[in-house]
Parts: sequence; C-alpha cells; structure tokens
Amino acid sequence: MSTKNTKCTSVQVGKRSVRLDKPAYILQSASVVGTKESEGPLGDLFDLVGENDKFGEDSWEMAEATLQKDALTLAIGKAKLTPRDIRYVFAGDLLGQAMASSFGLESFEIPLFGLYGACSTCGESLSLAAMTVAAGYGNYVAAVTSSHFASAEKQFRFPLEYANQRPMCATWTVTGSGAYILGSKTKENESPLGRITGVTTGVIVDYGIKDSMNMGAAMAPAACETIETHFKDFGINPKEYDKIITGDLGTVGSEILTTMLKERGYEISRQHEDCGVKIFDDETQNTGAGGSGCGCSASVLSAYYLPKIASGELKKILFVPTGALLSPVSFNEGQSVPGIAHAVVIEHVEV
Amino acid sequence: MSTKNTKCTSVQVGKRSVRLDKPAYILQSASVVGTKESEGPLGDLFDLVGENDKFGEDSWEMAEATLQKDALTLAIGKAKLTPRDIRYVFAGDLLGQAMASSFGLESFEIPLFGLYGACSTCGESLSLAAMTVAAGYGNYVAAVTSSHFASAEKQFRFPLEYANQRPMCATWTVTGSGAYILGSKTKENESPLGRITGVTTGVIVDYGIKDSMNMGAAMAPAACETIETHFKDFGINPKEYDKIITGDLGTVGSEILTTMLKERGYEISRQHEDCGVKIFDDETQNTGAGGSGCGCSASVLSAYYLPKIASGELKKILFVPTGALLSPVSFNEGQSVPGIAHAVVIEHVEV
Repeated sequence: MSTKNTKCTSVQVGKRSVRLDKPAYILQSASVVGTKESEGPLGDLFDLVGENDKFGEDSWEMAEATLQKDALTLAIGKAKLTPRDIRYVFAGDLLGQAMASSFGLESFEIPLFGLYGACSTCGESLSLAAMTVAAGYGNYVAAVTSSHFASAEKQFRFPLEYANQRPMCATWTVTGSGAYILGSKTKENESPLGRITGVTTGVIVDYGIKDSMNMGAAMAPAACETIETHFKDFGINPKEYDKIITGDLGTVGSEILTTMLKERGYEISRQHEDCGVKIFDDETQNTGAGGSGCGCSASVLSAYYLPKIASGELKKILFVPTGALLSPVSFNEGQSVPGIAHAVVIEHVEV
Repeated sequence: MSTKNTKCTSVQVGKRSVRLDKPAYILQSASVVGTKESEGPLGDLFDLVGENDKFGEDSWEMAEATLQKDALTLAIGKAKLTPRDIRYVFAGDLLGQAMASSFGLESFEIPLFGLYGACSTCGESLSLAAMTVAAGYGNYVAAVTSSHFASAEKQFRFPLEYANQRPMCATWTVTGSGAYILGSKTKENESPLGRITGVTTGVIVDYGIKDSMNMGAAMAPAACETIETHFKDFGINPKEYDKIITGDLGTVGSEILTTMLKERGYEISRQHEDCGVKIFDDETQNTGAGGSGCGCSASVLSAYYLPKIASGELKKILFVPTGALLSPVSFNEGQSVPGIAHAVVIEHVEV
C-alpha cells in the first residue's frame, strides 16, 4: 500500500471562486478534429485530422468515442506518460448518457468521473481536474471532452438524411475533441503549457429562451453571470486579462454578452474572443453563427490558445466555455433552455 | 472580496483511492420517493412521499426534477442552512443531458458541477463532494441525484403505454431522490450523520453483456473491480466493514458479485447488502430482481443506512453504487453495456 501525503492550500474567494495556490499545470494537450474543422481558419493547428468524419467506425457515436480516445492517447504521449500514470480523468460529451466518453475512454482503465455540462464541459472538466491536482489528490489528472456534428444533429435535431434547414443564428457543432493532462509538477527541462490559477463555477441561468436554433442567446446570460461574478470575486476588471475567451457563443451570443456586460459596467470588447467564431469561416463554410459543441472550445484552446500562453504571447486568459442545458425531451416538452458557464484562469509560466 | 485560507492534507492511497484526513461530514440528508417505494419494506423511513408519481407536474421528467428540488430543499432545511450557504452542488441523473438535475436545481442558484455516472451517481457525487470539502474548497457542499421509473422507461426502453413485458432478471427503476449536505465542521450541539473518510474511484469495466434487461450482470464486474481495488489499496479485508452496500445490483447482480469476489479471495456475504434488494418486496410488488436507478442508492442510504451510522449501530460501511453506462443509442447500435462503481467509506462519528 503506497501513500503520499501532500499539504495544500486552497483559498475560497468571494461567492463562487477558488484561487489555486498549489500548482495545477497544464502539462500537455491534444486536439483531434474532423474535415470541416481542418478546412477552417485554424486548420493547420490541430494535432490530428480525420480523413473523414467516421474515424474508421460504423456509427457517428463511435466515431466521436474514437475522437476522445485519440485525443487522450496523443495528450498522454506528448506528456511522456502512460495511462497508468493518470490518477483520474474528468470527461463528458453532449450525447445522452455520455456515450462518447464511456466508450472512448474504456480501454484506458483510468478512474473516471463522468460529467455533464453540455458545451461547458471543457471548463467544468478543467476546473475539477485543476482543483483535484492542487488539492494533492492526483499528480497527473486528465480532462477530456468532445462533440461530433453528426451525432449531435441526430441527438438534438434530426438525422442528416432529413436535410434539415438551419437559420443564420444557428451554430455548427464542431467535430472535435480536446484532451488535457494536468500535473502538480513539471518534468525536468520541460515547460508546462500553462497553469490554472483560479476557477469560477457557474450557476444555471435561464432567460426563458425557447429557440433551440439560437444557442448563443440561450447561453450568453450564463457567460455574463459567471464573468461578472468572477470579476467581483477577485476584485478585478477586464484589463486583468489579455483575452477573455468564450467557448461557443458564436457571433450572436458574443454580441449579447458584450452588451450585457457593458450594461453592468464591464467593457470586454478588447479582450473578448470566441472559439466558435474562430474555428470556422462562415463566408466559405456556411456555418451560420459559428462553431459549437464541447469539442469547439476544447480543440481551439488546445490548438490555438495554449501555444500562445506557452510562448508568453498571452500572459493571462480567462477561459469561459458555456453550455446549453437542453435535451431533446426538454425542448419537445416546451421547456426553455437554461445555460451554464464555467471559468478557468490560465497563466503563462516563466521557466 | 472575502478569502478563506485552509490547510488540508490529502493522502493518495494505492492505485485509485484517497484517504480524507480532513473532515468531510455528512451533516444532513433527505429522501423523496414515489408511491411504489412508499409501499415497500422501507416505506415509513423516507422523508417525503409523493401522492402520485407526477409530483404536481405535467411530465415525468419535470416530476423527476421536482424530486431533486424537494430533496435538496429538505436537506438544506434539515441542516439549518440556506441555498446561499452551499458552495457547490454535485448532481446528476439518468436522463439524456441530465435534464432532471438541470431543471430541478435551477432555482437554487448554487454553483453546479453536473455529473453523469448512471446509477453510480450517488457514489460519484458523494466522492467529489467529500474531496471538495476535505480540500477546503467549500464549507458546505451538496450532492444530489434522482431517478424516476416512468422517465427512465421512456428514456431507455418504451413509454409505459406500450405495456412492455419484463423478464425476472430486470430491475425496477426507483422513483426517488437523495440529497446530502456535506460540511467541514459540525454545528454546536449537533452530531453529523457520519463522515466520509475514504474514496475509491471506479474505472469502466465491460464484460460484454448486451442484455439491457439484466443490469445486475452488466454492473457486478465493475462492483467487484472497485471493491477488490479498495481492499488492496487500503490493505484491508471485508471484516473492516459492518456493511458493504451496493446500489442496485439486485438479486442477480448481488450473487454474481459475491461469487466473483470469493474467486478473488474476498468473502463478503456476511457484510453485503444491496439497496435494490432492500427497497422493494418482489413477492408483493412484482419488481423482478429489485430496485435500480440513481434514486435507489441515494434514497436508501439516506433513509435506511445513515440513521444506523448516526446512532452507532453501524460503525463503518463501504457504500458502492454501480452504474451501467449504456444509452438507448449504444444499445440499439449493438454495443455492450459497460459498468462503473464508485466507493465511499462512511464512518460513525463519536460526539
């Protein structure tokens, strides 16, 4: 029986935040995406691109499971670890009963905490993984999430064969996965990609939006709520950050967010960017208001933002994926679409 | 901006366990169930029973959301707290996209970490809540989960109106919710119900079972794996515990579990009990192999076992809810049913 004692300090800050004084480094990450994503503005930056969106499987759901499996395999390899080194994995996806995560992660035999946060799952999983590492519960902890355009359409709207039409405010679910390896210390001569130093956890926010084709409007209030709480909890303002990055509000949701925060005294236009707006080029790719899904924020953080944090081009960012907590049943039964947003603070590490 | 510094010690034990040296008390809990459960052997013990299984709502899913809302409201009240005192809630259910949790918990405005662990969710949520409290991230943290017979049948099998027939090995999804308030310290002159002192986290275990009507067989291997790992991690044997309690293996799964563990050198027949076997009387209630669902373990732990721990009749138990990680889609696409089991150690507190 092996034991390892670790002292740690955690600080509860304000209403809903923690400051992590013990390190929770992002040691490595990996991104795996589909063909449409590879053809977008960030196409060259992703680690792995599928030849087609089936990823060698017979169904969309198993293709999405393979996305997670490949992303985690890559991330573990990049960190020069093996699955046995990973103490916990926090993982989730959009599908009912977390199907992609369960089937994708089965073979690793890593202790699993399954999550559901809709498209906020990357923020939720990074929050919990960082808190777990900083508390000393695990030296290496993974966070993984994914989405797949076809499995999401089948789950939430209609199978692709129905050729369903989409309004311009609709977003396009990203086929992608991002996996992160967090650790309490870095390996000798190796710099971490960054460090998670703070977490602000979301509450459910429901402004009564009932349009399942306008996820940006459904989620923007939750992003506003979490970001405003974050600023108040830490006694800071937007200038604290080089970037404030939402997961998949898209163009519509982004405008609502910046307007709402301005009304509350916070001007974030200079810092704000959105992964859903970054990942596709609507003019050439016809993706409406932008990308969405757990895999959107997860793949873009890994492929686009973390390298900038690692290099020091960005010193400190607030990463705020948002989720729309609807289900096909809730929508069909006339319920509104509640939202939630989880924020993590990621900082450059000077070596 | 308020801050609160807390030192904590956590100990990683063996492959997949932690020992919580800082207190994570179960301060209070509450159980809410439906009519069938109230007519069973434990009927008088539950806190609240619905007049019918609609709980005043128009749909089964919103009825289940109300179960969670009522259970958490009761538990918070019993703990003499308000929702504002609760730093985090860890919650999940069986429905796609955690519908019952999202809609049930919305009004509390408590920072939410949504989970998916199928019927293991009570173990998963208690694990994370205890680790969170012991790490100093929150003074009061809640864990909630639920299931509902009708919403589960509609989600996983068929709407009730189809009058689907069930084999004897099938289990009956419990209409119920259990909510727990964990805290880092007790109030003056008040004894906690118990204390969580250890956690062993599950890995996904898949023995290739494809029968969605035999959840016991699908989940027993996961229970075996987690329990065996727990014993090895802590260097103990079954005699350490007054009871080893599984969530909802039912009669079939329980027999498989005790056989599997015996083959591995662990005789647990004297200690083992199963919440699914406890909650219904099959002879009079026609519930097949027993109760199942997240609400099974959650309501039975609260109503039946925690009072025995609080009184000292039981000094130390191992509580091991299991989950079957199938979805309607995975089952229909011919996938097997993977399982997972999360174990928590709950001890009596001498005052």
